[in-house]
Amino acid sequence: MISSLDLPSLRQAYSTGQVTPVDVVETVYERIERYADPAVWIYLAPKEESLRRAQALTPTEPSQLPLYGIPFAIKDNMDWAGVPTTAGCPSFAYAPQQSATVVNRLIFAGAIPIGKTNLDQFATGLVGTRSPYGICRNPFHPEYIPGGSSSGSAVAVAAGLVSFSLGTDTAGSGRVPAAFNQIVGLKPTRGYLSTQGVVPAVRSLDCVSIFALTCRDVQAILRVAAGFDPLDPFSRSPQWTDQPPGLRVGVPPREQLEFFGNQAAAENYQQALTRLAGLGCTLVTVDVMPFLTAGDLLYEGAWLAERTAAVGEFLRQTQTGVDPVVRQIILAGEAISGVRVFQDMYRLAALKRKTEMQWAQMDMLVLPTTGTIYRIAEVLAEPIALNRHLGRYTNFVNLLDLCALAVPSGRQPNGLPTGITLMAPAGWDQWLCHWGQRYQAALGEMLGATAMAEQEVSP
Amino acid sequence: MISSLDLPSLRQAYSTGQVTPVDVVETVYERIERYADPAVWIYLAPKEESLRRAQALTPTEPSQLPLYGIPFAIKDNMDWAGVPTTAGCPSFAYAPQQSATVVNRLIFAGAIPIGKTNLDQFATGLVGTRSPYGICRNPFHPEYIPGGSSSGSAVAVAAGLVSFSLGTDTAGSGRVPAAFNQIVGLKPTRGYLSTQGVVPAVRSLDCVSIFALTCRDVQAILRVAAGFDPLDPFSRSPQWTDQPPGLRVGVPPREQLEFFGNQAAAENYQQALTRLAGLGCTLVTVDVMPFLTAGDLLYEGAWLAERTAAVGEFLRQTQTGVDPVVRQIILAGEAISGVRVFQDMYRLAALKRKTEMQWAQMDMLVLPTTGTIYRIAEVLAEPIALNRHLGRYTNFVNLLDLCALAVPSGRQPNGLPTGITLMAPAGWDQWLCHWGQRYQAALGEMLGATAMAEQEVSP
Repeated sequence: MISSLDLPSLRQAYSTGQVTPVDVVETVYERIERYADPAVWIYLAPKEESLRRAQALTPTEPSQLPLYGIPFAIKDNMDWAGVPTTAGCPSFAYAPQQSATVVNRLIFAGAIPIGKTNLDQFATGLVGTRSPYGICRNPFHPEYIPGGSSSGSAVAVAAGLVSFSLGTDTAGSGRVPAAFNQIVGLKPTRGYLSTQGVVPAVRSLDCVSIFALTCRDVQAILRVAAGFDPLDPFSRSPQWTDQPPGLRVGVPPREQLEFFGNQAAAENYQQALTRLAGLGCTLVTVDVMPFLTAGDLLYEGAWLAERTAAVGEFLRQTQTGVDPVVRQIILAGEAISGVRVFQDMYRLAALKRKTEMQWAQMDMLVLPTTGTIYRIAEVLAEPIALNRHLGRYTNFVNLLDLCALAVPSGRQPNGLPTGITLMAPAGWDQWLCHWGQRYQAALGEMLGATAMAEQEVSP
Repeated sequence: MISSLDLPSLRQAYSTGQVTPVDVVETVYERIERYADPAVWIYLAPKEESLRRAQALTPTEPSQLPLYGIPFAIKDNMDWAGVPTTAGCPSFAYAPQQSATVVNRLIFAGAIPIGKTNLDQFATGLVGTRSPYGICRNPFHPEYIPGGSSSGSAVAVAAGLVSFSLGTDTAGSGRVPAAFNQIVGLKPTRGYLSTQGVVPAVRSLDCVSIFALTCRDVQAILRVAAGFDPLDPFSRSPQWTDQPPGLRVGVPPREQLEFFGNQAAAENYQQALTRLAGLGCTLVTVDVMPFLTAGDLLYEGAWLAERTAAVGEFLRQTQTGVDPVVRQIILAGEAISGVRVFQDMYRLAALKRKTEMQWAQMDMLVLPTTGTIYRIAEVLAEPIALNRHLGRYTNFVNLLDLCALAVPSGRQPNGLPTGITLMAPAGWDQWLCHWGQRYQAALGEMLGATAMAEQEVSP
C-alpha cells in the first residue's frame, strides 16, 4: 500500500506487483473527486479513457518504461491530441490533431495523462487569478492566491492528484506556483524541452516546466522530456554540465533583497542560506542588480512586443472570454517599435556580459522564489503592480539563459509556504536537481500540501 | 628585393635583413602616390608618422612579432586612436580616444597602420558609390564599381598599397569588393573578431572582415585578430572546428542560380565547380532557397530597424554630407514594429533549422560571390535594385551564422574578375582558409590587380 504518488513509491509498488496502473488511476480519480476544486481542471479525461490507458500498460514490464503508469497533468496551453487547447481563454480554443512533442515523449515513456489544468490566460501572470475558469484554491490558505500562470498544474501536484505535471515558464510561471504550493518546480534550460505544440507567450523565451514533489522526481522526468526537436526552431540539443569545481553559492547583499514587508519570508530565506552553508556550500556575496535589471526588460521593453506577436491579433478581434488585465498587458506591446526591440536586446546583451562575470565567482545563485505572497483580494485590487513584485526574482532567468529550480523552504507562521530558487547557467539542470534533492533532504519537511496527498493507493 | 607585399614575401625579406620596415613604409607611400586615386583614402597617416612606427620596430627581432612590419589599412568605420572616424559621413565624424580592439590587436602584433579607407556611407551598400569622399576606381575597368561597402580597403590591397586591410561585413561588404578586385575577403564567424570601436550598421550581425592577396595571409591575420573581447557584448570565444570528415561541396541546382544576364560569370562559376571537383571535392546538389530566402530578411524585414537603431537619430537631425540613398534605406526601418521584428526572427529561426538539415549533406557551400558586376552609371541610375542583386549570395550569411571566404575565380572577357565564396557553419573559418588556399593554388592566377603591386621594394 502506498500513499504518496512520488516516482520511487509508485515504481516500488509496481515492481512488486503491489498495485497496478489501474489501481493508481482509480485512486487519482477518487482524489480528484474528493479534492473538489473544479478550478484546477479545464479538462479532465473521462475516467474510462484513463483506465483504458492504464490497462494498455498491462502487457509491459514496469521496468521497461521509465515512467510506467505515472499519472500526470498538462497545463492547458499545450496540445494533447483530440482535447481542446484553451490557453485559459474559451474563445481561443482549438482542437489539436497532434500532441505537443513533450507530451508525446512522456506518454511514450509510459506516463498517463489525466487532464488539462487551469492557468493565467495565455500564461500571462504569476498570480493564478486571471482565468475565466476560476481561481484554484491555494491548498494552504483559501484567501491566498495559488500562484501562476501554471496554477492548476501546481495545485494538482500539491494536492496529490497526480505524480507530476507540466507547466510552462517564461517569467516565473513554473516557479512561483511551486513556491506557493510547497512543491518543486523546474524551469529547464531554454530549448531543452520542445515547445512544439505549446501556445506561445514570449516564443523565444518560453520553456516547458516540470512540477513534482521531489527534485529526484523532477530530474527523472526531465531526462525523459528533454531532447532535440527539429520541429521547434528554438530547440537545442541538451548538453548537461558536469558538477562544477566548487560549491560557491551566490547571494545578494541585504540591501538588494526585497520582501515587500514580509518579515517571515525574509527570515525563511536567511534560514535557507544557513541550511546551505550547513551542507558545505560557501556563501559568496554577489551584486545581483544586473540580473534584476535584465528582468525589468521582460514587461517593460522589447519582449512585451513578443507577447503581442503571439496573440495580439486574436485579442484585437475578440472580447468574449478575454481577461481584461491580460488583454491590457499583451496589447501594450503594439506600441513598441522595432528600433526599441534592438535597443533592448543590446541592453540585455550588455547585462548578460556583466552577469557572466558574476558567474566566475559562483556555481549557483540562490534567491527567494518570491519576496512574498498576496491575498486574492489584494491582487484583484492591484493586479499589475503586485504581479510584478512576484516576478522580481524570476523574470530575468530566461532572458539570461539560466536554468532554475524552485524548492520549498519552510512555512510562514500563517501556514503559507515559502521557497528558494537555485539558478545556474544553461545546461546545469541536472546538477541543480542534485543539489535541490540534498536541500530537500536537509529540510526534512513533509512534502505535498494536503492530507489528501497521503491517502492510500490500494489494489 | 621583393615586389609583392604578401606576408611570406615580407617575412622572408625581413628575416634575411634584405629590407626593413622603414623600406617597406617608403615603398608603400611611393605606391600610394603613384596609384593616385584620392578616393581610396579618407585619411592617410603622415609619412613621417608611419616611418616612426616602422623605426620603433627596429629593436625587435622580426620573428618575435607575428605581423612584424606588415602595412595595413583600416576601413573608416572603425576607430584608430587620435584619427577621426567618419563612417563615410564627414558630419558624423568623431575623434576616438582609443582604437578598436581589433586594430589594437594588429598593432600589438607588429602591423603598421597606414590610413583609413573609403566606404559606402555607414557601411550601407555593396557598390562603393555611396560616399561623399568619391568613388574608388575599380583597378580592372574604370567604368565599373569597385564594390562596397569596404571599397577603399579592397582597392588598397588589390593595388598593392598595403599587405592587408580591415573591412566590415554585415551584408557582404567584405566579400563583394573582394570579388570585384580579385583579392581574398574573409567574413569571419560572427563575434570572433571584436566589434568594439566599430560604428554599428546592424549591430547584432556586424563582423570585422579581412582582405589580403592570399588565403594563407588572411588566415595568419585571422589568428592574430580573433579573440574574445569582454568589452563587446556580441563577442564570442573562437572555437575552431577541425577538418570535417568529407569534402562534400554543396552547389545549387541550375534553376536557383541567377547571374542577371552575365553569361561570362555563369561560365566562370561552372569552371570553378569543375576545379573543385578536380581537387577531390564531391559536388552535392542542395536546395539553397532557405539560404536565399533568409537573406531577403536583411533589407526587407526586422534587421532594417537595427540600421535605424544605429544611426537613425543622427540621420533625422542631419542633412549635410549624408548620402540620400543611404538615408532613405536606413530611415525606412523606422516603420518596422516590434511585433514585426519578432515575427521575422521566427521566420529566420525556421529557415535556419532548414539550412541545418542541408548542412548534414555538405561540408562547404560554394556560390558565386555575386551574380554580376555593374557599371557606375548603372548603379547611380538604379541604386537600390542593383545593390540588391549584388547581395543575393551574401546577405544570408550573417543571419544564418556562417563564416565565408571570397576568393578570386577567373576573369570575364572584359577583364573584370569574378569570384566564388566558400561558406561553412560558425567556427570553420580556418578550414575555409585552408581550402581557399588550395583553390587559389589550383587557379594559379597572378594575384593583385595592377602592375603597381609588383613594383619592387628596395632597401
